[in-house]
Amino acid sequence: MKRIDHEKLLMIPGPTMVSSEVLNAMAYPIIGHRTEEFRTLLEDTVEKMKKVFITEGDVYIITGSGTAVMDMAIANTVDKGDKVLTICNGNFGERFSKIAEVYKGEVIKLEYPWGKGARPEDVKKILEENPDIKVVTVVHNETSTGVRNPIKEIGEVVKDYDALYIVDTISSLGGDYVDVDKFHIDICVTGSQKCLSAPPGISAISISEKAWDVINNTKSKSFYLDIKAYRDRFESKRESPYTPAVSLIYALNKALDRILEEGLENRVKRHERLAKATVAGLETMGIELFAEEWARSITVTSARYPEGIEDGKFRGILSNKYKVIIAGGQGQVSGKIFRIGHMGEAREIHILGTLAAIEMAFKELGYNASGGVEAAKDVLGM
Amino acid sequence: MKRIDHEKLLMIPGPTMVSSEVLNAMAYPIIGHRTEEFRTLLEDTVEKMKKVFITEGDVYIITGSGTAVMDMAIANTVDKGDKVLTICNGNFGERFSKIAEVYKGEVIKLEYPWGKGARPEDVKKILEENPDIKVVTVVHNETSTGVRNPIKEIGEVVKDYDALYIVDTISSLGGDYVDVDKFHIDICVTGSQKCLSAPPGISAISISEKAWDVINNTKSKSFYLDIKAYRDRFESKRESPYTPAVSLIYALNKALDRILEEGLENRVKRHERLAKATVAGLETMGIELFAEEWARSITVTSARYPEGIEDGKFRGILSNKYKVIIAGGQGQVSGKIFRIGHMGEAREIHILGTLAAIEMAFKELGYNASGGVEAAKDVLGM
Repeated sequence: MKRIDHEKLLMIPGPTMVSSEVLNAMAYPIIGHRTEEFRTLLEDTVEKMKKVFITEGDVYIITGSGTAVMDMAIANTVDKGDKVLTICNGNFGERFSKIAEVYKGEVIKLEYPWGKGARPEDVKKILEENPDIKVVTVVHNETSTGVRNPIKEIGEVVKDYDALYIVDTISSLGGDYVDVDKFHIDICVTGSQKCLSAPPGISAISISEKAWDVINNTKSKSFYLDIKAYRDRFESKRESPYTPAVSLIYALNKALDRILEEGLENRVKRHERLAKATVAGLETMGIELFAEEWARSITVTSARYPEGIEDGKFRGILSNKYKVIIAGGQGQVSGKIFRIGHMGEAREIHILGTLAAIEMAFKELGYNASGGVEAAKDVLGM
Repeated sequence: MKRIDHEKLLMIPGPTMVSSEVLNAMAYPIIGHRTEEFRTLLEDTVEKMKKVFITEGDVYIITGSGTAVMDMAIANTVDKGDKVLTICNGNFGERFSKIAEVYKGEVIKLEYPWGKGARPEDVKKILEENPDIKVVTVVHNETSTGVRNPIKEIGEVVKDYDALYIVDTISSLGGDYVDVDKFHIDICVTGSQKCLSAPPGISAISISEKAWDVINNTKSKSFYLDIKAYRDRFESKRESPYTPAVSLIYALNKALDRILEEGLENRVKRHERLAKATVAGLETMGIELFAEEWARSITVTSARYPEGIEDGKFRGILSNKYKVIIAGGQGQVSGKIFRIGHMGEAREIHILGTLAAIEMAFKELGYNASGGVEAAKDVLGM
C-alpha cells in the first residue's frame, strides 16, 4: 500500500482528532464479549454516556456509523403510513426523510434553504395541522451547513403533542448544549467520532419512556438495528446482542472520561470560544459565512468561497502543502462552501494554524486574505 | 470503573486474540474519510480482502458486527413472499431464518439436530421440489455447535438452480478453506474478529454478478445496510457512504497482511493441526465431542460436559484461577457443552495451556481428567 500520511491536522467536522490517550486505549488486548470483564466495561461506558446525554432514560451503544442509529430511531418507531415530520435544512435532515421513506412512513418535510435555521413556530404550525404526526426528527447541528437548530425550543413545542421527538446530536453532543431529558428528547442519537473525540465506528442512542411505549407497539423494520434486542440483552446480561466493537468501546470509555473531567459546561464554552475565533478570522479575511448568524453552529463553521476560488485546488493546497484537512460542501453546496470543524480535541493553536494555512492558500489562488490569524488571537485573548 | 483484566487467554470462538502489531495499528491518528489517504487505505483493504475471499467479485467493508452483513445479504435480495431456504443446524443458521422473516420472506428451513452437518443431497431435494427458491443460506462454520457444513459440495448443488447461494464464513474465513468463486458463492459474508484476527466491529461482504442481478431488482429493506449505497460510493469515489470505523480498517488491513504473508494454505493447515490437537486432548480426557466427526469444525471444537460438571463453575475456575476464557453453549445446548476457539492467532502453546487448565478445572470439580496435554503434544509432534 502507498504510504499514508496520518499526521495531517484534521479540521473537518468529523471524524475528529483523537487524543493519544484514547487511541492507545485501543491497543489493549481484546476481551470476550460474554465475560464479566466486558460487562463491567459496557455498563461503565453506558453510565458515562448517560451523564453526557444528561438522561435518566436508557442508553445503548451500537456498533455502526452515526447513520446506523439514525436508522434505528426510525426503523423502531415508524410503521407504514405513519406521519413523520422531518425538519430539513441540510444533508442530514434529509437523511431522516430518506430513512423514513424506506420504512414507508408518510414524510412531511419542513424545509428551509440550506444555511437557515429551523423555527419552532413552524414546527408548531405543522403539528397543529397534523395532530397525528407520530415522529418529529431534527438534526441539532447540521454538519453539512454549519447550522445549529434550536432543539431546546423545538422540544418545548413537541412535548405538548403525542409525537416522539427524535434528535440527531451526532456532531454536537459533547461540544454544544444537549440536555436530553430537559429538552424533552425521546430518542437522541449520536456518534463517537465528532465532539466526543473517539474513533469512528460506534454510536449511541437514548430512549425515553414515551419512546418505549411506541417502540413496544412497533415491529422493528430492521433485524440488526432492532432496539428491543439490545434492550433485552442489556437488561438480562449487561451485554450487547451481537459481537460489539470492543476496542472502540475501550476508546469511547476513555474519551468519556476526558469529557467528564473537563466538564460539559467547560467543554461547550471551549467550543464557543473556538467557533468565535474561527468566525472572526474568516470574516476579517473578508469571507462570507454560510449559516445565518442566529443559527450558527459552535462546532463547525461553514463559509462561502470568494469568487474564483476552486474548492479542489484550495483544499488540495491546504492538504498537500500545509497538511491541514478541512471539508468542502455536500450536495447542493458542493464546490460553493468550505467547512472547518472545531470539535472535540481541537485547541486554540489548531484554529490559528488552520486560519494561517487558509490565508496562505487563498493568497496563492489570487484572493488577498489577511488579518485572520490576528483577529482570532484577539478573540482568544492571545 | 472496576479494573479490567485484559490479559486472560482468549480461547473463545471469536472475538479472538489480536496480534500486538494489529492492535497497535489502531493507535495511528484518525484520517478523514473523504481524503486521498482514506481512499488508498480502503481500496488496499478491499483488494486484500478479495484475495482472502478468493473472488473476482465486488467486496465491501461494512461498519458493523458480523450480523450486520448477514442482515445485508438478506435485506438486499429478499422481497415479501420470496422463498428462502435456510439450512439450520445451529444458532447462526437460525439467525438467517429470523432475518428473512423480518423481511417477510417465506422461509423454508432445512433443519438438522445441533451437532450434525448439513447434507448436500437434502438441499438438492428441496431445490427440486421448490424451483422458485430465490435464496439459499448456509453457515460454513456453525460457531454455536462446532460443526463445519460442506459449503463446497452444497455450492455444487445450488449452482444448477436460479437461487442465490449465500454463505456465512464469519468464523471460517482465514482459518478454513473458502474459495468464493470456485464454491459458486454469490454472497459471502464474514467478520473481522474470528479467523482474520482483527478486532471486532467491521465485517465484509462479497457480491457475484448473479447476486447483482437480483439486488438490482430488489429494493433494499434497510437504509443503513443498502448495499447499493456502498457500491455507488465505492465505484464513484472509492469511499464508504457513511463514516467508517477508520481505526478498525487500519487493523484489518494489517491483519490481512499477516494472513497473506502466512499464506492461506499454510494458515488452514495450522488450524487443522490445532483442531486435531484439541480433539486428541479432549478425547484422551474422556470427553465426548459434540459435533459429528465428518462435520467437525477446524476452527472451534465443541464438547459435552461430563455428567455432574456445571458450566458456570467450570468456566469460572478457568477464567478466575487459570485466566483462560472458553465459551459455553448457546440456546438449546446452553450448560451442556463448552467450546474452544482455535482461530487466527492461536498457537500450539495456547492449546496446550488451555488443555492443561481444563484438566485441572475438571479435577477440581471431581472429574478425573488426565493425559490431554500429552495427547495434544503427540499430535503436534512436540
